[in-house]
Amino acid sequence: MNKKIIIAVDAMGGDNAPEKVIDGIELSLKENIENFFRLYGNEDQLNTLINKKSRIKNYCEIIHTENNIKDDESPLTAAKKNNSTSMWQSIESQKNGKSQITLSAGNTGALLLLSRLILNMISGVDKPALAGLWPNKVGMNVVLDLGANIECNDKNLIDFSYMGAALHNILFPNIIPHIALLNVGMEEIKGNEIIKKAYQNLKKLKKNDFNFYGYIEGNNIMDGNANVIITDGFTGNIALKTAEGTANFITRSLKKCLTGNLLNKISALLSYSALKKFRNQLDPRKYNGAIFLGLNGLVVKSHGSTDARGIAYSINMCNKIVEGNLIDKIKMNLNN
Amino acid sequence: MNKKIIIAVDAMGGDNAPEKVIDGIELSLKENIENFFRLYGNEDQLNTLINKKSRIKNYCEIIHTENNIKDDESPLTAAKKNNSTSMWQSIESQKNGKSQITLSAGNTGALLLLSRLILNMISGVDKPALAGLWPNKVGMNVVLDLGANIECNDKNLIDFSYMGAALHNILFPNIIPHIALLNVGMEEIKGNEIIKKAYQNLKKLKKNDFNFYGYIEGNNIMDGNANVIITDGFTGNIALKTAEGTANFITRSLKKCLTGNLLNKISALLSYSALKKFRNQLDPRKYNGAIFLGLNGLVVKSHGSTDARGIAYSINMCNKIVEGNLIDKIKMNLNN
Repeated sequence: MNKKIIIAVDAMGGDNAPEKVIDGIELSLKENIENFFRLYGNEDQLNTLINKKSRIKNYCEIIHTENNIKDDESPLTAAKKNNSTSMWQSIESQKNGKSQITLSAGNTGALLLLSRLILNMISGVDKPALAGLWPNKVGMNVVLDLGANIECNDKNLIDFSYMGAALHNILFPNIIPHIALLNVGMEEIKGNEIIKKAYQNLKKLKKNDFNFYGYIEGNNIMDGNANVIITDGFTGNIALKTAEGTANFITRSLKKCLTGNLLNKISALLSYSALKKFRNQLDPRKYNGAIFLGLNGLVVKSHGSTDARGIAYSINMCNKIVEGNLIDKIKMNLNN
Repeated sequence: MNKKIIIAVDAMGGDNAPEKVIDGIELSLKENIENFFRLYGNEDQLNTLINKKSRIKNYCEIIHTENNIKDDESPLTAAKKNNSTSMWQSIESQKNGKSQITLSAGNTGALLLLSRLILNMISGVDKPALAGLWPNKVGMNVVLDLGANIECNDKNLIDFSYMGAALHNILFPNIIPHIALLNVGMEEIKGNEIIKKAYQNLKKLKKNDFNFYGYIEGNNIMDGNANVIITDGFTGNIALKTAEGTANFITRSLKKCLTGNLLNKISALLSYSALKKFRNQLDPRKYNGAIFLGLNGLVVKSHGSTDARGIAYSINMCNKIVEGNLIDKIKMNLNN
């Protein structure tokens, strides 16, 4: 019991919370991932849900909170609710040593502000970044910043590089992180002054456990040559969402073409296993979970609209991050 | 003969030039698009090619140029070659009234600089933009800037909006242009100061033939609610290339899954027509051709690696732009 990782869960965050969150925890426990969950939220609602699920009971404790943070609430309004909310308390529990990591599917902006307020930054890091996973041809990229900072300077981009490499090391310990700066061309002269300065600094990088690839263009993000993709939060957010939009557009078009007439329907049926494999490869729930980097604490943000499977994946990610000692790893990278 | 549109072609620009360029012209003529082509490039090479193609002979004139611009040449080096190059002369021909539009598959940076040097800007426009086509659920978006300007101010973004609406009006006369600013959220408070200022200005827009949609996020670019997508050249370039990379990744994964075993191969064969339709819908050659906006002249940039079909599509686009009087339309939009 002592070795179990303790996850503080903002049980009221996300669409269809708390039901979906509890379903995700149940799924994760079914798959033999034995964590202990501190569930922050409305006691009555949570008790009703958990009483139906005998498996969960022994693996969680409910801590009643009066308030929630809505999805459309401004981060400032959310912060003014102080420690009355499930989000606030689930973060604060780390400070009190009651949990090792916080998981929330709630309002991203609020989660970022509260995390920063409560946990503070790692010394020497000016801005936190939102890191996410993005598939490539041979495995998975870590990409940041996905939207925490609209504007970044060269120091921020360099910090993001070290932090992203640390996360990659922990999530994919057998693969060497290759850091790349997202840019409009591969040549040294390309890009704005900020990115050029970061490039010149990172070029000097000599580390054993990660290295600098150079610039990367949007069409090469998924090639697998680089696997830690660094950019400011404006560009990163637009790139990620554009990729999502493109993937949706293509799979919708494909579906439409494949179900056009009877012959198509029959052949689509025959291709069922192949198409299922294809869908499975691209399943966005697998990449569910953005990680806040740069904080003196661990916070994972699940997609608000994901399902139990997506929540279970985020729990899996929480475990890897705690087991890998992410903060120590980041500090080590920054200080070398 | 007098009514034919005269296109000045930089016949030496692009991969496999001039062969591919001439093949594209031939294909375009086969499809009954009767233009007249002024071909700038190496006379011997061009004559050898054209002598094999009887159909073309009556529809073109070869103008010998001594020099070419290489793909990896810096725009400045290219400009120093002055009027000795096929690219320079194909642009200059517009100034002398010898052509109505220029088509090149050559070095984009050089083409942009030479076009600006030779043709100058439309009065009141500070920066030229690179506009391209991008499919959406119901038709086609015009997207700009795709990389001409790494940094843009609010005035630039507003100019781009008017210019993009003009281009959309001409290419798709039956559809009302809805202008949107690409951003990290839909709410007014989202984004950097530049984009917010542009938003406030465009919000006041009251036009009959186009309107302002607001902000758009990356995942909604292809929804079809907005069809003129405005952004700076850094973000636009990365968004476009990320979409290309995602599309390639998905279609490659699909192909791999669909040819995995015999059953998959048979069903893929059965789905052949559906998959062909799907491929056809997403055929990037259809969107081949970026248009330079803001210049006192008309320049279309074909993708360097496209084939004859792609060149033929760009020729088609040249015709629409000339017939629609793009520059007059832009001036009208800017002055109202």
